[in-house]
Amino acid sequence: MKALLLKNHGYTKDKPDSVVLSDMTPFVEMGDLPEPEPEEGEVKVEVTLASVNPSDEMFIQGLYGQPRVQGNAAGFEGVGKVVASGGGQYADGLMGQRVAVVAKPGKPGTWGKFTIADAMTCIPLIEGVRDEDGAAMVVNPLTALAMFDIVRETGEKAFILSAGASQLCKLMMNVARDEGFRPIALVRRDEQIDMLKEHGAAHVLNVTSDTFAEDFAKVSRAEKPRIFLDAVADQTSAVIHDAMPNRSRWIIYGKLSDELPTILQPGAMIFQSKIIEGFWLTRWMQDADMGTKMKTIQQAQQRFASGEWKTDVTAIVPLEDAIARLPEELAKPNGKVFIKP
Amino acid sequence: MKALLLKNHGYTKDKPDSVVLSDMTPFVEMGDLPEPEPEEGEVKVEVTLASVNPSDEMFIQGLYGQPRVQGNAAGFEGVGKVVASGGGQYADGLMGQRVAVVAKPGKPGTWGKFTIADAMTCIPLIEGVRDEDGAAMVVNPLTALAMFDIVRETGEKAFILSAGASQLCKLMMNVARDEGFRPIALVRRDEQIDMLKEHGAAHVLNVTSDTFAEDFAKVSRAEKPRIFLDAVADQTSAVIHDAMPNRSRWIIYGKLSDELPTILQPGAMIFQSKIIEGFWLTRWMQDADMGTKMKTIQQAQQRFASGEWKTDVTAIVPLEDAIARLPEELAKPNGKVFIKP
Repeated sequence: MKALLLKNHGYTKDKPDSVVLSDMTPFVEMGDLPEPEPEEGEVKVEVTLASVNPSDEMFIQGLYGQPRVQGNAAGFEGVGKVVASGGGQYADGLMGQRVAVVAKPGKPGTWGKFTIADAMTCIPLIEGVRDEDGAAMVVNPLTALAMFDIVRETGEKAFILSAGASQLCKLMMNVARDEGFRPIALVRRDEQIDMLKEHGAAHVLNVTSDTFAEDFAKVSRAEKPRIFLDAVADQTSAVIHDAMPNRSRWIIYGKLSDELPTILQPGAMIFQSKIIEGFWLTRWMQDADMGTKMKTIQQAQQRFASGEWKTDVTAIVPLEDAIARLPEELAKPNGKVFIKP
Repeated sequence: MKALLLKNHGYTKDKPDSVVLSDMTPFVEMGDLPEPEPEEGEVKVEVTLASVNPSDEMFIQGLYGQPRVQGNAAGFEGVGKVVASGGGQYADGLMGQRVAVVAKPGKPGTWGKFTIADAMTCIPLIEGVRDEDGAAMVVNPLTALAMFDIVRETGEKAFILSAGASQLCKLMMNVARDEGFRPIALVRRDEQIDMLKEHGAAHVLNVTSDTFAEDFAKVSRAEKPRIFLDAVADQTSAVIHDAMPNRSRWIIYGKLSDELPTILQPGAMIFQSKIIEGFWLTRWMQDADMGTKMKTIQQAQQRFASGEWKTDVTAIVPLEDAIARLPEELAKPNGKVFIKP
């Protein structure tokens, strides 16, 4: 079967000059794999659409928290039809169903004709959920809901989101607005401001604006946000955390910028109880109890089925064009890029 | 009464080029204050010896988490005799006693002939506790015991201490060794290595050594330390946290260096669950329950009385010489500096 295969093994040894993916060729190549067969408890899924997530971009470069297997197909998630079961009641029961799928680590990923998944991690899709939503139903939506739970638990109403125009942030702001929370979205383009207000942002600030420092200080004084969900982790992030009130948590969940942040006031950790920490969906999946996970997954599906959530599509790229076209499509703002095997 | 008076109010507006105190004259001046009188629940203490702590150095510069009151006497802690009570059973009961004292915020501090304290915060000293130990019985010992509790709670045996030759670290390593823990002390002078091994360090590494990176990597692999108690917070600290294993906590409790740390791998917060946080005794005093505090204070006193703990003295400087002599005495390693009013 045709698939995009990893050219490297394990993690990268040298830190790259840039984590922005401007060229796929050092990392993946088009190739042929024998069709994978599922083992006990696994299913084989014929992929209809596969997502390209920031985590995929990090992973193929060897910068993600999971080692690469050279020669294996890349791709974390997608949507498809279960065409074979490796045995076991749950796996057998999925036969023929359309599912949101996350590839099993070490097995062929979703950037190919077939992928292998643990049956227990497949989400049978209800009618009304589009393929584009099913293919992006796990990584972003669960990250959004799990991180929003952190905000909810603190009892604070206001919180900050960097890369505010991402799919993930839009999903999160929808939920937050519905529950009376006040998201403060950070963007790099003025034309995203109105769009994000429609998605539920209480404030949208452009970090590239000359008046950003004052704008942020004003909003921070008024809203007292104590949670910063950050996908960028650059010096602007450090400046923001520095300007936030006592007990502010800077929660890093992505690294979209190459710039390394310098902590401006280490004393703020001491005297203002500030904290710098991280969020990783994989860890959440390991730590959360089964009930919480099931509820979170069903919430995500329900929101997509009802149309409350909708994945914005930048492009659907055929598998054979992916290496050539992905970098330019990924550079476009506001939507998600998919691969069609 | 004679006292060293604060020349400035509140916090510093401009960040100083250096937090190292090379000159006292911009911050304190010798002056006369009316003798303070205690109010209900307070006592007046005639100061025998006053400590000079790193927190005092930060405070007089306006860099500590508590605002300065211009014209007031500086000095957080000391030892002395209770010479007046403002009323209340506990305050009255302290009359004539020798106590370890922490000045009440906003009232005249310990760098003068008399200080005012809440009676409840005074620690009556038992025989066998030297004045030098009584004058340094609160800030360092409680910080040492409270931070060591963090280590104990994690269930890890190995932990890292920067500024390893400080009084605070020596106290902590004594306790740690007795309980079978493995402190890894970081120093800047080779001659401190043997001394700290006697104090309980399992390893002592010189951060200025050419081989420090390799030395640290080797020790980190063998001991897997996951707690870093850091009084320095410079780039070396960031390098150490970066080289530590998964789930490592960088706990900042001081800022002895002027250098600001750059986070080398923000992704480590995501994929390795690393955390950057702080510890402040003042917050611990607010948060800990009374029983824990009492037990911790009595433990400290018991250790000094038994000779298990001993405060190393660099110099005892008369009040009138303090402005001229403190900077050079504070620059000397390994011991504590006191002011004698």
